[in-house]
Amino acid sequence: MIEEKLKKTSLLLDQPIKNYIDGSDVLYKAALHLPSHGGKRLRPFLVIKSCEIVGGDTNYVIPAAIAVELLHNFTLIHDDIMDNDLLRRGVPTVHTIWGIPMGILAGDLLFAKAFHILLSMKGDYERLIRAAEIMAKATIIISEGQSMDMSFEKRNDVSEEEYMTMIYKKTGALFEASAKIGAILGGGSEEMIECLGNYGKNLGIGFQIFDDYLGLVSKEEILGKPIGSDIREGKKTIFIIKLLNSSSRDKVINILGKKDISNEDIASIIYYIKNEKIDEYVLNKAKLHIDLAISSLSIFPNSEAKNDLIELAKYAISRLK
Amino acid sequence: MIEEKLKKTSLLLDQPIKNYIDGSDVLYKAALHLPSHGGKRLRPFLVIKSCEIVGGDTNYVIPAAIAVELLHNFTLIHDDIMDNDLLRRGVPTVHTIWGIPMGILAGDLLFAKAFHILLSMKGDYERLIRAAEIMAKATIIISEGQSMDMSFEKRNDVSEEEYMTMIYKKTGALFEASAKIGAILGGGSEEMIECLGNYGKNLGIGFQIFDDYLGLVSKEEILGKPIGSDIREGKKTIFIIKLLNSSSRDKVINILGKKDISNEDIASIIYYIKNEKIDEYVLNKAKLHIDLAISSLSIFPNSEAKNDLIELAKYAISRLK
Repeated sequence: MIEEKLKKTSLLLDQPIKNYIDGSDVLYKAALHLPSHGGKRLRPFLVIKSCEIVGGDTNYVIPAAIAVELLHNFTLIHDDIMDNDLLRRGVPTVHTIWGIPMGILAGDLLFAKAFHILLSMKGDYERLIRAAEIMAKATIIISEGQSMDMSFEKRNDVSEEEYMTMIYKKTGALFEASAKIGAILGGGSEEMIECLGNYGKNLGIGFQIFDDYLGLVSKEEILGKPIGSDIREGKKTIFIIKLLNSSSRDKVINILGKKDISNEDIASIIYYIKNEKIDEYVLNKAKLHIDLAISSLSIFPNSEAKNDLIELAKYAISRLK
Repeated sequence: MIEEKLKKTSLLLDQPIKNYIDGSDVLYKAALHLPSHGGKRLRPFLVIKSCEIVGGDTNYVIPAAIAVELLHNFTLIHDDIMDNDLLRRGVPTVHTIWGIPMGILAGDLLFAKAFHILLSMKGDYERLIRAAEIMAKATIIISEGQSMDMSFEKRNDVSEEEYMTMIYKKTGALFEASAKIGAILGGGSEEMIECLGNYGKNLGIGFQIFDDYLGLVSKEEILGKPIGSDIREGKKTIFIIKLLNSSSRDKVINILGKKDISNEDIASIIYYIKNEKIDEYVLNKAKLHIDLAISSLSIFPNSEAKNDLIELAKYAISRLK
């Protein structure tokens, strides 16, 4: 049900995105590559539903919804260069096809387009400025999150608190901003904006923790990459951080430090994770944030939009990928 | 005289820039590297003087002046990665010190900061939105210009018209935007905004053509790199474009296509450029745009700000570097 609604919103945005990123230069082709390969488009859904729940005009906020989606795609294109990732959404990444210089530039163009689209909206200028300021602030926070994430790869002493800050910055901040932008442009009250921001933030955090979880417990066919790829790539997922802060630290630290981690190594890391019951801990932590997200909606009376946001939160920790 | 004023404005911005780009993370160190090594800061000067000439409060627009300067620095950091340049402003480029991933991220942070600083200004919200929209549009155009510039390197059939479009996009657009932003936030009339935009655009174009000129006629000590480096790097400067469209095309095309261009090759290219009187043509072209810039100011009565803008335009084609 909620998946159908997500799909419907996503389809609705396909053509407008193509119209916004329209140019004959190869730059436009490169910039449109990732957005035209879909993705779940959760952030624009959040903008639209947050507008709807405060009683705003959902058609009016479509440009803002597209703006946050393009902003998200810009960060993905640049992240893929930084992390040297070759595939995303089942297709080669932008820099893999067009090279790093064009990848950088395509990201920059989407970033600029995101602001241009949002700022070209008419309406209450004070609310528009506030929405754009929130989007700019979120981008600053996302950059800080990516920097933290990169620095974690070289460290074995990352705390759970640092991990939580990092995923708030990398994922929570733009979910939070999306919900706030929808609420602001929909004419919501300060209390509504605040509560929806809280909803978005906790949804993003729960979503990201569950993403780590899927990387360990999902199936290779669904994930599109082998189970434990995160471990092999040296990513500091919450599993690894908890494991390094557990009594199994001494047993795993040498394995994690290897240049080439074998399948047997991955299997033994997963054994220790399960032995320490870290998988249960992580799933509960994701659930906690989803519960926090849902309870942030308590000020709103029942409505279809409220129901959709609740379903979206539940979906975030039940999806297979 | 104008150089002293530029210097004074530049110094005035040092501390506020440090305050805006303030963080303990390495990301902030990388992001502050280029802005803290000065540069001429022509664009913030343009914002401030355009505000002054329309009778606005120059202190009010300082955040906007800093925003365009940070935006400019973001484009330089990313361009240096794309062009693989090792030095800028006499110091190693950001990615040379911190690596390409951090270089990309430092640029992204400055981009986001530029918008955040501008959007955090208080005042007439409609004018602020318009200023921010112009900044976003300029960034789109700059990305297109960089894409054109990169595509030119592989081509031997670039027309002078294409070159002019490219330098408008890469340099003229942000000069134009800076002047307009100063005029808009200073409360200027539509006519004033239009004329100052025209001034900035032609100043930027004249400045860029003269930059190409300096690369050929300046001295190595002043330029900070050998005369003819542009030729060696395969850059399609206006000299090369004119030469490839001249009767000397057949004599130079093989030299320009070489993998390693010798000093003798450079000398012979310069010989052909002078023989075809392309150096005179280029200098006249730069002067023409500077004259156009100055005549765009005719609607304004005499004032110190007007005088400064005229001197700035003259300086743009008389500076040694």
